[in-house]
This record gives sequence, structure tokens and C-alpha cells, in this order.
Amino acid sequence: MNTMEKITTVPSLKQILTAHKTIKPYIHQTPVISNASINKLTGASIFFKCENFQKIGAFKMRGATCATMALTDKEKTNGIATHSSGNHAQAVALSAKNHNINAYIVMPSSAPVIKRKATEGYGANIITCNPTIAARQSTLDQVVAKTNATFIHPFDNYNVIAGQATAAIELIEEVGRMDIVMAPIGGGGLMSGTALGTHYLLPDTQIIGTEPERVDDAYLSFQKGEIVKNKSINSIADGLLTNLSPKTFNIIKEHLNEIITVSEQQIIQAMRLIWERMKIIVEPSSAVPLAAILKQKERFLGQKIGLILTGGNVDINNLPF
Amino acid sequence: MNTMEKITTVPSLKQILTAHKTIKPYIHQTPVISNASINKLTGASIFFKCENFQKIGAFKMRGATCATMALTDKEKTNGIATHSSGNHAQAVALSAKNHNINAYIVMPSSAPVIKRKATEGYGANIITCNPTIAARQSTLDQVVAKTNATFIHPFDNYNVIAGQATAAIELIEEVGRMDIVMAPIGGGGLMSGTALGTHYLLPDTQIIGTEPERVDDAYLSFQKGEIVKNKSINSIADGLLTNLSPKTFNIIKEHLNEIITVSEQQIIQAMRLIWERMKIIVEPSSAVPLAAILKQKERFLGQKIGLILTGGNVDINNLPF
Repeated sequence: MNTMEKITTVPSLKQILTAHKTIKPYIHQTPVISNASINKLTGASIFFKCENFQKIGAFKMRGATCATMALTDKEKTNGIATHSSGNHAQAVALSAKNHNINAYIVMPSSAPVIKRKATEGYGANIITCNPTIAARQSTLDQVVAKTNATFIHPFDNYNVIAGQATAAIELIEEVGRMDIVMAPIGGGGLMSGTALGTHYLLPDTQIIGTEPERVDDAYLSFQKGEIVKNKSINSIADGLLTNLSPKTFNIIKEHLNEIITVSEQQIIQAMRLIWERMKIIVEPSSAVPLAAILKQKERFLGQKIGLILTGGNVDINNLPF
Repeated sequence: MNTMEKITTVPSLKQILTAHKTIKPYIHQTPVISNASINKLTGASIFFKCENFQKIGAFKMRGATCATMALTDKEKTNGIATHSSGNHAQAVALSAKNHNINAYIVMPSSAPVIKRKATEGYGANIITCNPTIAARQSTLDQVVAKTNATFIHPFDNYNVIAGQATAAIELIEEVGRMDIVMAPIGGGGLMSGTALGTHYLLPDTQIIGTEPERVDDAYLSFQKGEIVKNKSINSIADGLLTNLSPKTFNIIKEHLNEIITVSEQQIIQAMRLIWERMKIIVEPSSAVPLAAILKQKERFLGQKIGLILTGGNVDINNLPF
């Protein structure tokens, strides 16, 4: 029996709340943390939703679980598949394990050994491909053709978006009214989910996306009104290198007030501030919203802000400071 | 008016609970965190009391606040003084600031600039001395002679010990019965407070101290039944380099079941495990109890264990991994 409906249009509040109830046994309700010293420094009142403490170390567990639980029994028999070198791979692998189904993860040969091992640790079948976008897709297509596994797209999937929205739902349930809610934008799964959750529960709250200057596809797409692709994928924020998809772009276009871009240096400084003041480990992508607040300090002065820390999966042998 | 009595003998449960109530407005009730992956790895059920999230980033804020609040009005007029290059300096400085009194901190010229700046940031007067134990003490004596400030000893002080005991009180209030409670031992302030709190509230629980092999004064003192001093102070666990004092040794001697020592390598491995799995930043001293659990895995198998993470003040430009 599939315990979650397959969502085929922009998720409604009811669908997001059902998703939350459905995935709850498989995710952590992560803490919301404030830090006196960062509040003093920014002049704002910031509530950090700590998805670095989520299972597999990132928010991706929410979306992958929601998509997995929407499979039919027949689909479950065939398993699930995806391509990813990062957090989505681990999220799909653990979701599959939690529901006793097979997972097939296409990973580029360049993926860090530690991420490969973590994904294998959840019992997933790893299929190695050449480190190009084309090879990823063609290898995945072969795997799906052979196994009949269901492809779980990392963000262009309404069940994934509904799952990611549950982080904002928990944030708002805990903190209440806020002036602004912020998230970083990669493929836009977290951002579109965050935007929907905020729009439904706090209709007067501003929704602000944030992005590295070097991978500013969402910023450009938002300005132009159509999807613009990244010219480079060279940023320390390794979770934010993907382009928007039709489903995420449409939600972002409709619900965001603004997208702010930040430099690599600003990301590293904000990441360092979170590590040193909050004593928590976050990945570079997590630091992008705080970098935006520090960049446009005047604009955020005195505001009550919720922001989502995406995850904490960093290679501590290869830090930017 | 002094809001806390001066404690002149081994603190009673009533005195510790009063200390807790008195200092509460000035400290964080820090979270207790468990980690599925570390529990799986150790085969134990471990509850980490996260004093890395305490104000100033370490448990020292508890003891310093308790000692400061026990001053008479006259003593408050003259201020407080201490010598420290580390967390106690910041704790005394912030406690003084919180109670609008002067603080005089003797710091060795070798103290990291970042710690000096943090201490200055709380408005303390910094007096620089040569980096020897003798120079620290003589400089402090001069400062006290000149200012009539009250010396707040970092651990040989029953109000400080009662303050440090409140971390264990909170841990036990949150977790309930445990088989074992553990802490690291430096000067013994945290360990003796933890031992008292555990002894009073969970009389059947084992109390285990942990220490780096390289600075094993507490281990040797516990074996010999009298205070033995460290032969070297060369350990990465920079919070644990001090010798026990009469007050802390007597409590440790009476209430501990055992002291386990661990190698530098074991400390670094445990610290890395906490960073990577728990996504929190802890200083090397914090990792010593987990290192002991990993070293004597069989002994801790299936046990319900509470342990205190001392703090999170590390120089992230100078990590051991």
C-alpha cells in the first residue's frame, strides 16, 4: 500500500501537511537555533533551521522519503534509482533501506570516496559512470531500462518538493510569525518547498532566495522570466551547482520576492561565522543566506528572519579556512 | 546583596540546586544530544551534554557565574581577578560584565589573539605576563594587591565546583537513570561537580573520569591516594593540562569509580567522529570521554552513558585533521 499520494500539480497546503505527517517517522524534527552574537553582529533576529542535524546530514532526506512513500507496491518491487554524487544519493539510499526496497545510484567516478562509502553503507547498488552530465543521464537510463526502477529526480518532482517544504513548516510551527524566510537555491527543490510552506502559513512574510554569484542561474531566470542555465559550475557551495527545473522555476517565479547573490568570499566568511559562533558544522551551501544578510545588512536590520541551513556534509580534511 | 551563599565545604545537593536556580538567568540550558551512528558504532547508548553551546562556548560559564554571584557588595565594588589563557578567562570576564563589576584577567603573552580579543570584548582589563606559571601567579598577586579584587580560582573553589555540577544536574533531569556518567579531568572542577551531582541524584550510577595519557596526574593521584603532578603538559586537549587541587582531588578520590586514560590519537579520532557524525564543533578536551568508550568498547557495551562535552572553542585554522 502506498501511504502517500503521488502529487501531480503544485503541492497544496493539505498535501504538504500530509507529506509531513507521513514522513515524520523517518526524519528528525531538527532544532531551530538562535545565536546572540550573530544577532548582535547583524542587528537582526535570525532563526536557523538546522537541517545539518537531519538524517544523512541534509534536508534531502525529507524529499526522498516523501517520493519513496508515494510509490505503488509494484513500483516498490522494482526499486528506485537516481544519479547524484552528494546528499540526494544518500537520501535515496536510506529511504530505500527504510522501506525495504532496492536502490540504484549512479555516481560519477569523481565522487568522493567518503560519499560513495556512505551510500553503499545504506545498502544501495552503486553504478559508476564517467564524470559528465551526459554520462550520468545515459547510465541512469540504462539502469532504469534494465531494472524498471522508478527514477527519483532530486528536485523536479512534486513529492520531493512537498517533502522539502516540511522544513519550513516545522520552522514556522516553532517560531511563528517572521518578517522574512530565506533559503539557498540549487535546483530549487528546497527553495520552492520553502516558498510554498511560507506562502501558505505566513502569507505576509517575504520570501528571499539566495545564490552564489558564480552559479546565478536562478537569479538570472527570475529576472528574465524564463529558465537561464549556469555558465559555470565553479563554486564552493557544492550543493547549489544545478540549474532550476520547470517545476521549481514556476514556484520560485510566483512566490519569491527577491533573489540575492553572494561572492565566494562572502560564503566562506558566513560559513566561518556559523562554525565559530554557533559551534555547528554546516556545508558551504548552508552559509549562503547568512552571507546575503551580511552583504545587505541595512536591508535586514531589525527583521525577524527564518533561514534554512541545508546540511553539514563537508570534508573536514578540505576546509576553506 | 549577594544572591548566592559562599560555599565553604564540599557542596551539598541543596547548595548545588540553589546554585543552579541562581545562575540560570545567566547560562544556557544546553541540549542533550544522542547520535544513532555513534550508538551503533559503540554498542552503547550515549547522551552528550553539549556545553559547547554554553555561553562563551564552554561549561566554565557555570562556575564563574556561581562564584561571582557569591561576592558581597563590597567585594563586587573591587571586582574579580583571575589568570587564564582559555575558557575561564572569558567566563570570568562575561560574569563580571553581567554583574556590572570590574574584571582583571592575567593572560600569558603566548595566549592566542582570538582569546585575548574575546576576553577584551567582554570589557575585561587584560594584564599581560610572561608565559610561565610563576609569572602568572606573581602578576596576579600584584593585581590583587593593587585592586583588592577577589581571585576566582578556576577550580579550587567550592562555588565554582557547585556551578560546574549544574551541567550534570541538567543532564540527569533530562535523561533520568543512567548506568555511567563520564567527564574529562583537567583541574577537576567539572569532574568533581559532575561526581557530586551524579552521586546525589543517581547514587547507583558509576562515575568515570577520563584523561589524556600524556597529562595523567588525576589517574596517578587516584591510584596513589595523594596528589601527583603532571610531568608534561603536552597534549592536544588544551583544557586538561592543569593539576588537581586539594578540593577537587578529595571529591574525585571519594566519588569516582575509575579513571581511564587515552592517547592523543584516540582523542583526535573521537573528536573527528563527533564533528563528522554529530555535525557539532567540540574542542579536543570534549572528545576524551568518547575516546575512552571507544578504547574500552567491551566494557561499555549496552550501557546507558551520560557524558559532558566541555566546550567548542577551537582555532579552526589549526585543526588536528
